[in-house]
Amino acid sequence: MPHIAIPEGIPGIRGPLSIRPDIAKPLSEFTETLMRGENSLSRGERELIATVVSSLNECFFCENAHGGVAQHYLQCDMALIDQVKADFSSADISEKMKRLLSIAASVQKGGKHVTAAQIADAKNKGATDREIHDTVLIAAAFCMFNRYVDGLDTWAPREKSFYTDRAKHAAELGYHVVTS
Amino acid sequence: MPHIAIPEGIPGIRGPLSIRPDIAKPLSEFTETLMRGENSLSRGERELIATVVSSLNECFFCENAHGGVAQHYLQCDMALIDQVKADFSSADISEKMKRLLSIAASVQKGGKHVTAAQIADAKNKGATDREIHDTVLIAAAFCMFNRYVDGLDTWAPREKSFYTDRAKHAAELGYHVVTS
Repeated sequence: MPHIAIPEGIPGIRGPLSIRPDIAKPLSEFTETLMRGENSLSRGERELIATVVSSLNECFFCENAHGGVAQHYLQCDMALIDQVKADFSSADISEKMKRLLSIAASVQKGGKHVTAAQIADAKNKGATDREIHDTVLIAAAFCMFNRYVDGLDTWAPREKSFYTDRAKHAAELGYHVVTS
Repeated sequence: MPHIAIPEGIPGIRGPLSIRPDIAKPLSEFTETLMRGENSLSRGERELIATVVSSLNECFFCENAHGGVAQHYLQCDMALIDQVKADFSSADISEKMKRLLSIAASVQKGGKHVTAAQIADAKNKGATDREIHDTVLIAAAFCMFNRYVDGLDTWAPREKSFYTDRAKHAAELGYHVVTS
């Protein structure tokens, strides 16, 4: 049972946001811009960053919700998403993405864990300043979302099929309507 | 030197936000609503939560910027802010605030660290569901802001007087204009 009164049957972050539309509105706009706005990182790549950070934070809802959406955008097998979560350095993704995920994993531990060497390595593999900026902010944002979801002990369906089944619909809706 | 190109002389979070007004706008609105909107927690109490979490994350800019603003709102000695950061359980603050800060400190470690006993204890000292919600979200949000600020290695003045001197002005401006 969640730590505070939240309408039943609304999974994950959507539960607490449903009782605070004043907060939900700007937070949804922020998420929509960051995760789906114009960007040289594809929506799938950004969802992969969100998935890895949520996995490191052991946030079941976010890890599976964003893993499902990442798989939908990337049109890959779920095995690739699982491999990226288990060890992105050996996964079949670009060298640039491996470096960006390494930065994201450091951000998950704490901002000061990001090193100049990691940044240089990412730039060497083609990462732009903006891509590095967005990677850091996406990783930081999911350190917030994960804590919000788990800190209130929100409800999340345990069946993984729930997340893969909803991914296409979730991707079509985007983040604007997170309060609906 | 920051990890990416950021205009010089803009401290902390305002540096990276200055290059991304599309992100800054909804993020500032979120912060304004959460930290300064109508609330049974005073602005000073909310800034105290932000200060404690930023201190635990060892984010120099946020810890001092929000500590300064907390002191301004609470009209207390800076010694109280320092005491709250060092050990809020023995500080001269309300029993309810001690419980809310305990929840915030757990959120800083990770959402799952918040226990049902902590929540019950806070409610027993008068905390409402909404105050618990906002405490969790403020703590989670500063886990984002701190990582954003330090993950990009942004510049921050080292003199503590910079933060106390700017507190009154910062409190008057609020968070709407974080990009200016």
